[in-house]
Amino acid sequence: MAHSTIGDVARLAGVSTSSVSNLLNGRSARMRPATRDRIQKAIVQLGYTPNQAARQLKTGHSSIIGLIVPSVANPFFGLFARHVEEAALSHGYQVLLGNSDRDPRRECNYAEELWGSGVRGIIFGTSLGHYRHLDELISKGMHIIAFDQSKEPDLAGPIDCIGVDNIQATRLLTKHIMALGHRRIGFVSGPISTVSRKDRLLGYRQSLEEGKVEYDPRLVWEGVSDNFGDTSTIKLGRQGAHDLLSLQDPPTAIIAINDMYAFGVYAGARDLGISIPDEVSVAGIDNLPLTEIVVPALTTIQQPIKEIALLAVRRLIDKIEGPQDVAPTHQILPPELIVRASTAPA
Amino acid sequence: MAHSTIGDVARLAGVSTSSVSNLLNGRSARMRPATRDRIQKAIVQLGYTPNQAARQLKTGHSSIIGLIVPSVANPFFGLFARHVEEAALSHGYQVLLGNSDRDPRRECNYAEELWGSGVRGIIFGTSLGHYRHLDELISKGMHIIAFDQSKEPDLAGPIDCIGVDNIQATRLLTKHIMALGHRRIGFVSGPISTVSRKDRLLGYRQSLEEGKVEYDPRLVWEGVSDNFGDTSTIKLGRQGAHDLLSLQDPPTAIIAINDMYAFGVYAGARDLGISIPDEVSVAGIDNLPLTEIVVPALTTIQQPIKEIALLAVRRLIDKIEGPQDVAPTHQILPPELIVRASTAPA
Repeated sequence: MAHSTIGDVARLAGVSTSSVSNLLNGRSARMRPATRDRIQKAIVQLGYTPNQAARQLKTGHSSIIGLIVPSVANPFFGLFARHVEEAALSHGYQVLLGNSDRDPRRECNYAEELWGSGVRGIIFGTSLGHYRHLDELISKGMHIIAFDQSKEPDLAGPIDCIGVDNIQATRLLTKHIMALGHRRIGFVSGPISTVSRKDRLLGYRQSLEEGKVEYDPRLVWEGVSDNFGDTSTIKLGRQGAHDLLSLQDPPTAIIAINDMYAFGVYAGARDLGISIPDEVSVAGIDNLPLTEIVVPALTTIQQPIKEIALLAVRRLIDKIEGPQDVAPTHQILPPELIVRASTAPA
Repeated sequence: MAHSTIGDVARLAGVSTSSVSNLLNGRSARMRPATRDRIQKAIVQLGYTPNQAARQLKTGHSSIIGLIVPSVANPFFGLFARHVEEAALSHGYQVLLGNSDRDPRRECNYAEELWGSGVRGIIFGTSLGHYRHLDELISKGMHIIAFDQSKEPDLAGPIDCIGVDNIQATRLLTKHIMALGHRRIGFVSGPISTVSRKDRLLGYRQSLEEGKVEYDPRLVWEGVSDNFGDTSTIKLGRQGAHDLLSLQDPPTAIIAINDMYAFGVYAGARDLGISIPDEVSVAGIDNLPLTEIVVPALTTIQQPIKEIALLAVRRLIDKIEGPQDVAPTHQILPPELIVRASTAPA
């Protein structure tokens, strides 16, 4: 198969090869957005990627960016990875992906291997709350974008954050469920050790307080361990539903930390012969494609993952290719409530 | 965070550092399996990875292998990627992942970028049926393991195949469904252009013929395009169910090309008020975790993906580290039928 050349891209986009080269090498600040878009479309359409070795010699960095996620077996991160890749391809970059299980040591190992391969930028889809394990690499010049960080982060160093407002996510769910008349609302999660999970618990507690509903810690079910997206999340959700729905005074609604957990809650309720939403309302977070297919369709939260991916990739490439003294940005995008059939009046 | 050293691994495994080094550098042929396992466990437990640059200088190759899949947004490939990564980590390798959309140009671009980074082995989770687009890299010394190839491949060059018997997968499903008394059996798929899909169609047709059921091409619904695992697969499955179940003489059972399509068939049947399994039986392939959670639980095929991942990684590393003249192997593993509630007597 013949390879596309920079000339093919220029012809398809109707621009000069030097315009394509400018975009690929990060000199596109003065380019008109329409031109930039046309070139990016042509690059994607032709599957063009510049030769890595030649480019690395010229620019000092690889045309690959890294993406490290907790588990690509969680369909949410699978979709996020797809969006990141599409955005990167449109800038002439490719994406290499690693799973960290949110283990700082594995994150660090992957980051060092990527550095050794010439990669100078990584998007972290985890939320450990700090990047101290990467301090050494960052000081050498590795650029980092953190996805899924806190609204008010306590991060040292030049780390950009682009993510969703996780506090707002559970605020939207909890308020929606309280508006349906529920007062005993369960919360099912794996270990609440990451920033995003802590924020989600916080949003739930804030809304209860605002709604004058007393917080009952027995209604917060926290699984002892999971691996962030494998089959264990479904099992934990199921176990959480068993435990909460067997309480003497069980919840009439359950918020799950994400859709995979919510699918587990569905199974757990079914095991006990408890009907959703007649006897218990259930909601999740992520809006996975399957939330429309399960019965009843799941009320959930849409994260703006495509937009986050676009912003993160553009920002990362600007940092890799641009001047090194850009101040870190911090963009937190709003989530959206998707009401479906799994939540009903108490 | 302190890094593990080769000494830490040796201590934990109760062996000498030279034994660890031997394993990491592919000199483990005479090592006892129990010792090999102990070292591998210690490596995983400590998250140890040898320094890439130092190792590459010594061995001439990177401690990274590549994995290229059609779409990591398909949970099946997400799980496969996890298994490949676990197996690779136990050998001291890491995995970088690319999505190809089964586009030969993108496969080739990723493979070339990986080559440029020192990667000398790639597992391809696609099944285009040939690797001509990679001939040049293969001739330079890139090692390739093809997953998901045909039972009787027509592959030129030194390519190893390790995969599942896709013909047998649909034979098992079709025979199971015919044994329940069904004679009009639909087949819902995306474009039947890949080896695995052609094999699945073949297994279906073979079984019909053996069961003296006439093949009716109107019952084979082939979607015009998909992107191998994104939301489009659910949409196509839904559309396929609409079309087949609206025929004058509709099928009483539908085999979907994989579980994501089967979930779409569930939605399509529900749209028409047709009950599964009372009015139509449905089956898929992959045994995704969610097949147990949907209602009714889905009859499907378990692929031995963990075993395939282990075999593929070990074989690839043997090729990278070992002599270059090993004859290609071709291992096709048997699938397993998982009968659940979605298939019932006609």
